[in-house]
Formats: sequence, C-alpha cells, structure tokens
Amino acid sequence: MALLETSKYSQGSVLGSVNPDLASERQTASFSVEKLTALLDGGVEQTRIRRAVVDAIESDPVFSRENQYFQTQNERYEAAVKKAVHLQKKMHEMGWTENGPEYKYIYRALSGDVAFLLHRVFMRSISMLGSDKQIAKWIPLATQHKLIGSYAQTELGHGTYLQGLETTAVFDTATQEFILNTPKISAMKWWPGDMGRSATHTVVFAQLYVHGKCYGIHPFIVQIRSLQDHSLCPGVTAGDIGPKMNFEHIDNGYLLLKNVRIPRENMLSKFCEVRPDGTYVRQGSQKINYFTMTSVRISLIADEVLTPLMKACTIAIRYSVVRRQSKLKPGEQEAKILDYQTQQEKVLPQLAAAYAFHFTNDYLQELFNRGYREIQRKNFDMLPELHALSSGFKAMITQHCTAGVEICLRACGGHGYSLLSGLPSLYTKILASCIYEGENTILLLQTARFLIKCFMAVSAGQPVPPSVTYLAAVKPGKCPAKSKLDFLSPDIYTEAYQHVAVRLISSTAAKLQDLIQSGVKKHDAWNQCTVQLVQAAKAHCHYIAVKNFAETVEKLETKAGIQKIMKHLCDLFALHGIFSNTGAFLHDGYTSAAQMDMVTASYLDLLAVIRKDAVPLVDAFDFTDKSLNSALGSYDGQAYQRLYEWAQKSPTNQMSPAYERYLKPLLHNTLSKL
Amino acid sequence: MALLETSKYSQGSVLGSVNPDLASERQTASFSVEKLTALLDGGVEQTRIRRAVVDAIESDPVFSRENQYFQTQNERYEAAVKKAVHLQKKMHEMGWTENGPEYKYIYRALSGDVAFLLHRVFMRSISMLGSDKQIAKWIPLATQHKLIGSYAQTELGHGTYLQGLETTAVFDTATQEFILNTPKISAMKWWPGDMGRSATHTVVFAQLYVHGKCYGIHPFIVQIRSLQDHSLCPGVTAGDIGPKMNFEHIDNGYLLLKNVRIPRENMLSKFCEVRPDGTYVRQGSQKINYFTMTSVRISLIADEVLTPLMKACTIAIRYSVVRRQSKLKPGEQEAKILDYQTQQEKVLPQLAAAYAFHFTNDYLQELFNRGYREIQRKNFDMLPELHALSSGFKAMITQHCTAGVEICLRACGGHGYSLLSGLPSLYTKILASCIYEGENTILLLQTARFLIKCFMAVSAGQPVPPSVTYLAAVKPGKCPAKSKLDFLSPDIYTEAYQHVAVRLISSTAAKLQDLIQSGVKKHDAWNQCTVQLVQAAKAHCHYIAVKNFAETVEKLETKAGIQKIMKHLCDLFALHGIFSNTGAFLHDGYTSAAQMDMVTASYLDLLAVIRKDAVPLVDAFDFTDKSLNSALGSYDGQAYQRLYEWAQKSPTNQMSPAYERYLKPLLHNTLSKL
Repeated sequence: MALLETSKYSQGSVLGSVNPDLASERQTASFSVEKLTALLDGGVEQTRIRRAVVDAIESDPVFSRENQYFQTQNERYEAAVKKAVHLQKKMHEMGWTENGPEYKYIYRALSGDVAFLLHRVFMRSISMLGSDKQIAKWIPLATQHKLIGSYAQTELGHGTYLQGLETTAVFDTATQEFILNTPKISAMKWWPGDMGRSATHTVVFAQLYVHGKCYGIHPFIVQIRSLQDHSLCPGVTAGDIGPKMNFEHIDNGYLLLKNVRIPRENMLSKFCEVRPDGTYVRQGSQKINYFTMTSVRISLIADEVLTPLMKACTIAIRYSVVRRQSKLKPGEQEAKILDYQTQQEKVLPQLAAAYAFHFTNDYLQELFNRGYREIQRKNFDMLPELHALSSGFKAMITQHCTAGVEICLRACGGHGYSLLSGLPSLYTKILASCIYEGENTILLLQTARFLIKCFMAVSAGQPVPPSVTYLAAVKPGKCPAKSKLDFLSPDIYTEAYQHVAVRLISSTAAKLQDLIQSGVKKHDAWNQCTVQLVQAAKAHCHYIAVKNFAETVEKLETKAGIQKIMKHLCDLFALHGIFSNTGAFLHDGYTSAAQMDMVTASYLDLLAVIRKDAVPLVDAFDFTDKSLNSALGSYDGQAYQRLYEWAQKSPTNQMSPAYERYLKPLLHNTLSKL
Repeated sequence: MALLETSKYSQGSVLGSVNPDLASERQTASFSVEKLTALLDGGVEQTRIRRAVVDAIESDPVFSRENQYFQTQNERYEAAVKKAVHLQKKMHEMGWTENGPEYKYIYRALSGDVAFLLHRVFMRSISMLGSDKQIAKWIPLATQHKLIGSYAQTELGHGTYLQGLETTAVFDTATQEFILNTPKISAMKWWPGDMGRSATHTVVFAQLYVHGKCYGIHPFIVQIRSLQDHSLCPGVTAGDIGPKMNFEHIDNGYLLLKNVRIPRENMLSKFCEVRPDGTYVRQGSQKINYFTMTSVRISLIADEVLTPLMKACTIAIRYSVVRRQSKLKPGEQEAKILDYQTQQEKVLPQLAAAYAFHFTNDYLQELFNRGYREIQRKNFDMLPELHALSSGFKAMITQHCTAGVEICLRACGGHGYSLLSGLPSLYTKILASCIYEGENTILLLQTARFLIKCFMAVSAGQPVPPSVTYLAAVKPGKCPAKSKLDFLSPDIYTEAYQHVAVRLISSTAAKLQDLIQSGVKKHDAWNQCTVQLVQAAKAHCHYIAVKNFAETVEKLETKAGIQKIMKHLCDLFALHGIFSNTGAFLHDGYTSAAQMDMVTASYLDLLAVIRKDAVPLVDAFDFTDKSLNSALGSYDGQAYQRLYEWAQKSPTNQMSPAYERYLKPLLHNTLSKL
C-alpha cells in the first residue's frame, strides 16, 4: 500500500488513464527523472522530506486550494486566516518545528496561500532591531499568538526612498512617550500585509523628533487594535487597501495615526535609543541591517520566483504535447503543438531559464552563507559584493521569470487565459516580485553603481571582489568560433558574455566620465547614463548566470544522463540569451555576422534536441496536481476533461437574477411595461 | 452653464484643485492640445460628436463603472446585461442609430463593458452567410430581440485550425433535418461569448455529412434555450466556462449537443446548400469571407488595443509627474519620477507607439476601404495584401501594445499593481487580443507566407502589391548617417528599417530554398524556418509602421506646433525600435557600431525633449476620469487622495467572519476549546 501511494505520488489523477500523447513523451526520457529531482532538491533525503510535507499538507482538506479560482477576495482572506491558524495545530501534530528540516517546505506546499506572513516579519524585525529586553518581552507574546504583528514601512507616498517617509514620532519628555502622527495623506502607511484586517500590533517606521530635532527614520512598536474585541485603538484609522492583481488572500492595509501615544520603551533600541531626558544615543554597527535586505532578496527567489516559473513550464509543456492543432505534414494526424518550432521557441528557453536560475540561486545561497559566516566574525568585507549580486539577481531573475510565465501563458492560447489553467494567477503573482523588496530598476542601478566603482578600482590597479575580477582581464580579441558546433562550447559563449559585460560597463563608465569632464554635474551625468547602466548591470548578471550554469554542469555526475541533458539546457540558456540580444554581441565586432548565424543555427537545433526531453524535464520539478492547481497541466494530461469538470463548478453556473430582471422582459417584449 | 459644462469636460474632478505638480506640466505645452485631439478624432466635428456620446453615457448612472473593481464575476455579468438592455432604450432616447455618426463612439464610451456583443456577430454572420430568405426571417427577430444570438465556432480542441472542428451535422433525408452532435469532449464548443447564460440561439460550425460523405465545415442556426422560460432545449448542455483573466462581464460558454435536430432551412446557405434529396450545391464565390476576418482584425485595433494603451499611458504619465521619489540633486526637493531617464525610457516609447499605431490604423482603414470598393466591383486582387497586412499588424500591434500596457503598469510601482489604478484590468484585457481573432504567431506566419511569395515573385521579375514593391529595390550599401542628428531624418531611419526587412525576408527565403534543395521536405523546411519567418514578418510591419508615421507627419499642418511634436514622436518610435533591436541593424554592417552609438545618443536626447510635452500628449487622448476609472490617472492628479477614498469602499473593509471564527480564538487562546 505504501509503495502504491508512493508510485501514485506525482499523479493524483482523478480521471484514470494518462493521455497517451503525454505518456509517450515519458517513455523516451534520456535521463532518470527521479535522479534529477533529487539533484534539484539537494539530495534524496531532501526529496523524501519534501514529499512527506507535501503529502501531509495536501491530504488535509483545510489546506485545499480546490475552489480558489472561484473565490472572492473576502473568501480568500478568510481561508488564508483559517489555514494559518490550522497550520499551528498541524505543525504541532506533525512535530514540525521552525528549526526542523521540514519547515522550508511548508510554505511551498501551501503555495504561499496562508495568512500571518507579516507576523513573522514583525518578529524578525524585533529580533534584529530590538534590545534584549524588548526581545524578551515581545517575542514570547508573538510566538504564543497573544498578538498578531505586522510591519508598517511603506507609505502612500514613499516606497523606494525610505529617508522620505513622512510619519512622525515626537518624543514627549513629560510623559515619556512618543506621539505618532500621519501628518498628511501621502504619509499614510499603505500596503503592509496582515494589517488591513488582522494585526493587533505593527512596527511603524517614522521620523523621530526629539526636542524639535529630526533624527531620521526609526522603528516603533504600535498597538493598532484591541486585544479584547479587535476594535481600532484610539487615534488609529486602519483598513484594507482593496483589490489587487493577486494576493487576494492577504489583507494589505492602510494605517493613519493621530496623536497615538506609545511608551518610550516601544522604540526598537538595539542601535539607537532615546534616554528619558531626550538624549539620543546611537550604539553598535548597523551594517548588519543591509544584510537583512540581502537575505530577503535571495530567499524570495526560490519560492516566489522560481517555483511559479517551474509550475508555468510544467503546465505549458504538458499541455503542448496533449494539444494537437493543424498538420505539420499533409495527410498526417494533427501535430502536437510542441512539434512546431515556434512553440518550442516559446516554452523551451523558459525551461532552460528555470534550471539556470535554480543553479544561480544555489550560487547566491552559498555566497550568502559564506558572507554570513564572515559577518559573524565581524568581517563585513563581503557586504558590497553580496548587496550588488543580490540586488542585480533579484531584478534580473524576477524580470526573466515574470516574462517567462507570461510566455507560457500565451503559449497555451485561449485556455491559458482561463483562470482554471492556473497560469493567470501564477503570472499576476510573480509580477509583484518585480516591484516588492526593491523595485527592479532601482536595484539594477545599485548593482551598476558597484560595477562602476569596481571598474574604476580595477583600472587603478586596486583589488576587487571575486565576482568582478573579470573586469581586469579585458582581452580585446574576437570570438574564436569557427562552426556552429563551437557555440556548444561553454568557454566560447561564456567568454562572449564576459566580453559584452566588460564592454557595457567600461563604455558606460567612459560616458559618465566624459559627461563629468565636460562640465555636467555628477548627479545629472549619472541620470543621463542610467538607461545604459541598467543594461550593464543586466549584462553582468547574465554573464555570472551563464558562467555558473556552465561550471555547475561541469561538476555534475555523468551517469544517469543528467549531465548531458543539463549541458543541453545550459547551452540553450546561453544561446537564447545571445539570439535574443544579438546587438550586444555584434556591436564591436567581437562576434561576426557569420558567427551570429552559427549561433542561430545551433540555437534552433538545440530546441529540437531538448524538445524530446521536455516532459521529463518538467516532471522532474515534481509538482503534484494539487500544487499546480491547473486544468491544463495535470500529470495525466486530461486537459479538456478537467476544464469541463471544473467549469461546471463555477459560481457563474448558478442561476443569475439577470434573466428575470432583464433577459425575460427583453425577450418577451415587456421592457416598456417595467 | 453650457460653457461651464464644456470646460469641465475633461476634468470631472471630485476633489477640487488640480495637483500643482500636474498643473505645471500643462502650462508649458508646445502645441495646442485641443487641435491634436481633433486630429486624432479626424476633425473638430468628430470630437464634438464623440464628446456628446461620452457625456450622455457617462451621465447615466446605469452605465456607471464606479464599483467595477469590487464586483464578482456574477455581478459583472448582471451589470453588463442590464447595460445592454438599457442601451436599447438610450439609443432610442438619444436618436442614435446603427448607421449614425454616434454609433462608433458608444462602445468606446462604455469601455466595452456591455453584453450581447456576440448577438451582433450572430446577425453579421447571418447577413454574410445566409440566403435572402434566411436574412428575411432571422434578422428582424434578432433586431427586435425576440431572440438572443451567439456564434459557436471555437471548440475545446480547436481554435486556430478550423478544418479540424469536430462537431458534426448529419443530414437526415427522411425528416429533412440536420442532426447535430458533439462526438467527443474536445468537440465541445468553448469560449463563445453571450452563450454561457444569455443566448437563445447560436450559429454552430460543424462538419456537414450527407449520405455518409463529409463536406467540411458549415454554419447552422441552432436554438439552445427556450424562448419561454430560458431552459435548455432537449439534447443541449450549455453553461459558463468560469473565471478568466478579464471579461468577467461576458458569459463565455460551453455547448454540448446530443442528437439535436434542426430543420434543413437552418443551414446558412448563401454559398452552399443541401437540397431536399441530399444533393450538395456550392454557389457563388466565398472569397468575400476572407474579407470578414480582415475587417474584424482591423476593426479591433482601435477599440481593443489602442484605447487601452492610450489609457495606460495617460495613467502612467500623469502619475509619473505627481509621484515624487528620491532626489536627483542633493539638497533639492524630491524629483518627479518622470524626470528620471529610466522612467522616461519606460513610458515615453509607449506613448510614441500609441501615436504611431493610431496612424497605422488610419492607414489600414484606408487600405481596407479601398479594398472594399474594389471587391464591390468584383475585383479581388487586393485581398492577399490586405489579408497579409491585417494579419501582421493585428499581431504586431497587439503584441506591442500589450507589452506597452504592462510596462506602464510596472512603471507605477506598487500602486500600479492595485486594481484601483485601472492598469491591471487594462493589461488583463488587452492580453486577450494577442490570442483572439487569430493567434499572433499563426498570423505572423501567414504574413510571412505572403512575403516569401512576393519575394520570389519579385526575384522572378513579376509584379507585386504596392506594400511590398520595396523588396525589388534592394540596395546593398551602408547607412549614410554621419552624426546623431542624421538619425532624426526620416529618410535615414526608414531606409534602415527597409534594409532590415529585406535582409530578413531574403535570408529566410534563401534558408528555405537551401533546405528544400538539400532534400528536406517542404513542410519540414517551412517548420525549421518559422522562428525566422516570424522575425521577418515583424520587421516588415515595423518598417511599414515607421514609414507610414513619417509620411503622415510630413503631411500635417505645421501650425499650432502639432507637426513638430508629432515629428519628435515619430523619431522616438523609430529610434526606440532600433535601440531595442540593435542586432538586426548591425548584423550585415548596414549600420556601424559608431552609428549605433549615434542612435543611442539621439534616442536618449529625444526622451528628454518629449518628456516636456508628455502630459499634454496624453491629455490630447481626451479620456474622461470616468472612462479611465483610475485612482492614479485622473485629470486633477490627486492620486493618493483617490486611492484612499476608493479603498475605503472596498468590500474587504466590511467585517469578516474570520475574526470571530479564527482570530479571536487564536488571540484569546481558546483555539483548543473549539
């Protein structure tokens, strides 16, 4: 029985047999799907643990997402709160703890569809920014859910530029309190999750004023709702900001404060404190704070960005082999749409990107862990590089993956447009990742600033962090490829990417210097270079991603066909990038037109090669049907049957009052009598 | 009073004063906004009529879209039916007729938010495909709304490839009836609008069988619901296909037929008829049918594609001058985000594209009208060119504009992600235009087929239609530009676009021939070239769009600053296309790297020039606040105030049962007692 359960793991079919058009795709896999899954998970044991978590979550009806596409925002919110509360129980039942190996799989298994995520950010911010005394007071309350926390930073008028936040906290020495105010509409807190309807407390970021002097932004713990009856506290106006493209389950909120008084002890004071007499004291190093942003940006990549792209690829590729449309050869059966070159060119590069960024994520995680160890030893040297890479990759990966999900959606034609395909919600959700935790353009410009600085250092013969030492090794030269097969050599394409990155960084640095030398003020010159700086930052990240993928493939075990197929994907990822951006490689003649034609030929050849393993490659992501929640992408490929079954359950198939009110009078010509 | 009404036309402010950051943008317009509006409308009189229609619609509360973002799919459907019914009354009241000058503005004024659009397609298909007798019988019934029609072509398993439709209609000589069936699940009709809940009749496309022989796809009028009580007719299963990314107001439906019998007279028989004895007779030319698809593809461009992009630009650009974030210069006030080069580079090319495609649309309309006149004279010579251009431009414009709306959405950061910004619904709606009325890749390949054919003809010295004669005039040469200013010459950039189009078409034609000559079968060779064929078709359309924009600007009146600003937009449109696609221009050395740097310089310079007129340029689109339905984009620029006001009305600010059910027990630690 246990064996049967395991073998059915990925299937979860309600319909029975697997569509033969999908089944046949699995018989010819060139590699072991199970081995690839284990590689992605980081080992067989990890796969086992992940599956156990998924099983436990998915077999519990409270966590069901079955009717999700039919629910209103109110229903989604209520379900998310219910799940969050139930999760406490479940974790206890299962013996899962926050430090256990299962923990990281829970959120993924829930597809993020749960409330109180900001409660965790509330706790984290107190742990990071609070004094020992504050931690001792608040963390147990939060852990035991004697309060529900949120995190109120963003305002209507300010997101990116934190120094511009307008909420004020004025210290009143007489009462030993801070008086918090929202001085104007743009100062209203806006967007914080869990705050619209759930939270009782929140960490408010406000401009601190003592004796009329402004000390800048500081964090304050503010109670916003009664712990007894959940009514708003005096001086507090709060509510939900209404409908968004996705995240219907989250009560993103607004908050308006009018002379709200909190005790002096509620200012989080690990780094800064206001003494009873109003003396402002700064203590310790805040450098570690930058590390938090870095940590958040890296940690969101896997769950919020890669998983949606992997799901979208799974759905689009499975559907592309069960959908037959038109004929490739006259007189034959209609062809699977994945056999059309144009369809391959849509979905397969997204698949390659999903694998590429999976390995980029490993690279970033490792770098981060190394950085963390250094910081523990009070060595902050790695911070600038870590900040630059995490910012750039957050922007680059979210952008690529968002575009990838949209391509997958469109590649499924009309059915991709139905919510039941699962693709619209993947798209509308991943889109947000381009905006939150640092708007992408801003982040790329931060990476660019680092690159320009390093380029200057390198030019002056100074040492730079490892990821940018290549800036010193500028070889003019030309691409040495002589045939299309040469472009399947990682050395060839990696060097081409390196060349482009160096060229874009150096030419933008030169433009910047020229402008400044010609008398343009520094900030104006910077602004006039930003479009090109963004390009340079992207080129840098793209180069690192290609290089890392190639190096990873090199190190893979050669058995079970894994290395070979990963090599194909790496080649495709690299060549797709060149094919989609030929100008960058042609510009200074590093790559000739003839070589670009070779790239195109190799690229198109690769599509046909990878197409053969496309279904096994998405099967290896190991999503259950419940986690895909897609009528098009199920393991058994019974797309049409599922669309029909699901549609029948839609609330739009209930009787509408429109008939009696409008249609009947219209048809019976009694409108005028109404 | 009348004067006051008019002057307030565009404003509709509920808040009073115009945000000074927005007001200042209007004071420096380099051209007459009112004159540009008239140009876009096609004359002052057209502007007057349009405004009168908009006024009448928007002042009628039944047509309000005020709560749209808060409504469920069921509520949206009911509202759309209500509006459709009310529109009948309104038209009568206002004296608007289907042939009057007001008619074309009604749909736009309603923002498409109305039911029974397929009822019109039902009527059109009968008019086009029905015999005189059928027209005489059905059109009056439809006009008087004694029935509600739909149009059932697409099936679960077939959209693009109509020959593959699987619904069957078997002629029964004994009873003189057709027996309609859905033989398998993939044959189920799927997507037809108005069919899920409203329609009583529909035109079903089915494979015609007579005496066991299949005659291919034919249209049949089938009643699906009772005219008395709206219950489904015997043998009919129908319903709504459920939630989609947008179009919540439309009841896209499914339809399953089981031995549904209809009289012989219900097969639309203008071109084909089944005689009582089962003889199949074909009569007349069906060429005109292709013309219908062409007509639909062209007609959707203005309302479904350009209007959303224009609205998105209006919202994003107005918001970009009221949003201030971070400092451009140290010590100064925070800067309007439109002053950042990266922000300009996001939104201004979209604005230029909106104008470019407006003029492309004029060009297509004119071509279409000319074609129509020719066809009336039984001259079908223009059909292939018209088909190729309408297909290619439908694909190119929908793709560009969809991407443009998404860029505008992202350019507004978090607030763009709120439904209240209006941008998400513009995006999710325009996205569908890439799929319906011909999937874009398929359409581009049809254009490509025409181009390859014409290229072969030209190579053989044969005549070709006017839009492709340039294929004959291949000049090898190099781009003659010597400075960045040369790239502001339409001759220079138009010729560069032409060169690229010729190169891509000719090189793909050569690859195709090479493959065939090397023994690859024709259809395989075609498939192996499709990625490049798509590129060639896009390059052709892009060339025509640039050329047409340049020619249009040439002819504009020079006064009131119109020509000058349009010239800037034309330059920006052209240079943005080169800047975003440098490889195509660099490939064979037509444009040198040094010239490409000039393009970049001119392009970035232009952004700063057009930025000054950005707000007047969107004001000229003349959208009312009600039609934008955006908290961010209103005429008065009070974005934050409106977001707050609107959010408060959200149903998510009603009391949720989640508190009593889950939050209270959690906070009061009584969960275990539940």
